[in-house]
Amino acid sequence: MAAAMIAPGSAIGILGGGQLGRMLALAAAQLGFDVHIFTDEPDSPASRVAARTFVGNYLDRAALADFARRVQVVTTEFENVPAETAQALIDAGARVAPSPRALAVAQDRFDEKSYFQSAGIATPPFKAIGSQEDLDAAIAEIGAPAILKTRRLGYDGRGQIRIDSADDARGAYAKLGAPGILEGFCAFEREVSIVAARGADGAIAFYDLNENEHAGGILSRTTLPAQVSASVTVGAQNAARRVLEAFDYVGVLTIEFFVMRDGTLIANEMAPRVHNSGHWTIEGALTSQFEQHIRAVAGWPLGPTTRIADIEMLNLIGEDADAWPQLAADPSARLHLYGKRDTRAGRKMGHVTKLIL
Amino acid sequence: MAAAMIAPGSAIGILGGGQLGRMLALAAAQLGFDVHIFTDEPDSPASRVAARTFVGNYLDRAALADFARRVQVVTTEFENVPAETAQALIDAGARVAPSPRALAVAQDRFDEKSYFQSAGIATPPFKAIGSQEDLDAAIAEIGAPAILKTRRLGYDGRGQIRIDSADDARGAYAKLGAPGILEGFCAFEREVSIVAARGADGAIAFYDLNENEHAGGILSRTTLPAQVSASVTVGAQNAARRVLEAFDYVGVLTIEFFVMRDGTLIANEMAPRVHNSGHWTIEGALTSQFEQHIRAVAGWPLGPTTRIADIEMLNLIGEDADAWPQLAADPSARLHLYGKRDTRAGRKMGHVTKLIL
Repeated sequence: MAAAMIAPGSAIGILGGGQLGRMLALAAAQLGFDVHIFTDEPDSPASRVAARTFVGNYLDRAALADFARRVQVVTTEFENVPAETAQALIDAGARVAPSPRALAVAQDRFDEKSYFQSAGIATPPFKAIGSQEDLDAAIAEIGAPAILKTRRLGYDGRGQIRIDSADDARGAYAKLGAPGILEGFCAFEREVSIVAARGADGAIAFYDLNENEHAGGILSRTTLPAQVSASVTVGAQNAARRVLEAFDYVGVLTIEFFVMRDGTLIANEMAPRVHNSGHWTIEGALTSQFEQHIRAVAGWPLGPTTRIADIEMLNLIGEDADAWPQLAADPSARLHLYGKRDTRAGRKMGHVTKLIL
Repeated sequence: MAAAMIAPGSAIGILGGGQLGRMLALAAAQLGFDVHIFTDEPDSPASRVAARTFVGNYLDRAALADFARRVQVVTTEFENVPAETAQALIDAGARVAPSPRALAVAQDRFDEKSYFQSAGIATPPFKAIGSQEDLDAAIAEIGAPAILKTRRLGYDGRGQIRIDSADDARGAYAKLGAPGILEGFCAFEREVSIVAARGADGAIAFYDLNENEHAGGILSRTTLPAQVSASVTVGAQNAARRVLEAFDYVGVLTIEFFVMRDGTLIANEMAPRVHNSGHWTIEGALTSQFEQHIRAVAGWPLGPTTRIADIEMLNLIGEDADAWPQLAADPSARLHLYGKRDTRAGRKMGHVTKLIL
């Protein structure tokens, strides 16, 4: 049975205080909701646009139970929510969306790729790595170049070692310092992602495919329309539909793919949340990915995903954001800054969306 | 000299906690600002999306001085800011925009219309009314139908008495209960408004003209494009430019006009702030009126006002907002709810914007 619609004026709980939580909070406010943030970070970007913030440890069951009692639903802005956190919220009677099972799978690169394979979604060749011996054996099997990644807690290019030769492999497991996964390198032609949503009623909506460029492992640029054939789009939609339905998923979910020269789609990873490559939807789609996620977790019908212009979205990483006076003066740039107190190299400080009307 | 650009991460102070403050706060957050709200209302719509709220009396000089010290600029969401409030802020060293002089003129319907006339902007015939005798004399001069309004603190049709005959006039001044203004009734063909902005650098930008329909004195519907000739648009722009420049105005300002059958523009009133008839700019223009106002008061360059679609904006007054489940399910409706705790007749609870692409 579909979850009941949560009425405007109710409180929506968000785990995490970063920019995704901030943009979710802004979208929730537009629909008349109060937002409560639970975060372990004082003075977070999201907390400054929320009705209430609970600063606490994600493993503090009592604090989580208190949070759960004050909100009508709990969602998250990040996938690395500890399993214990989700369980504590559920034990306290909270409605949680998306499901902890989807979060758990997305937290572990090996589980994630194993899941993709079981669902018939192509992935690069991969092997779980628990020792240097595992790594040596996996390289012998998969070949180089390959990428050794931590199974857990990697993001934006962190926790990754590229292996181009047996030399690179030497001592690499110790350097990684955690259980890993070796992934065969895909000589892709382009990278795309699909932002999809599933409502509490089971309805599914897709945004147009994003074409993505990364620099140093961090998304730098997203453009639409993606330069891909219709069959690539259909393939991405089918993969997203399979994942959304398998997890009885409620909310926005993103899958990143490599597109090979022959048009084959290879799933890279999934994010059980709103995604950087979907930021353009704030101005460029009738319903933003943030509003869409709030609609879904609140049990509301999904909104239309129609794209209203061609798009170029540019991330502002680290000192890129220092150019705010120039960006503010650029009539083609819709500027978003996340309110982060400190500029650090590799840190996502904001983004700019250009609508090509 | 133009005021310096206020850097993202700084705090912007807003007087007032209503829906306009809320939408200003959301726009400021998008640009990376913190927002501090000063309001006499606990648990206000704006406070729930602001980094910090100061609940206090608008005449409490110490509280205002404390507020002024914590923010880089103070602006307002309502025109009825007491003169003492603005003075206290300025005495405390605050940068205040728009200027208190523009607020003062807009607070008093007689001063406002006198100002329009001095600036060569046509108004209905009007007379200041301080007694029943004044009223009788004014009706003899202006004729009926006419509208008796309080000079101060009227909005959304409150503080108004329509006078169709000498009978209606009897005892009307006592009923009004405050110094008034009698305005000759304009048999207008349509009502329009212009939302305009002036930056700290003196640059001026206009949004397309809004065509407005009122019900019971409250705006009910705004559509674009307005069904008026180019000369009406130019006339409205010229009037707005004159007002903006005369007051060395910084921020968004709105003027409402009657359009007569022959195309003559008659100024009805001005609002030294963002305006209900400009709510469509959130989705329908490249820069929303809320972002535009924040840009102006922060000393940033104005953004482009390009309209991207034809528009129908519908206000949700009182129980209209109870239809939120239907509105949430309407793919043509972009829903905005203001987070007001109580639904009351005549209260603006939200609005819906429809983009006709």
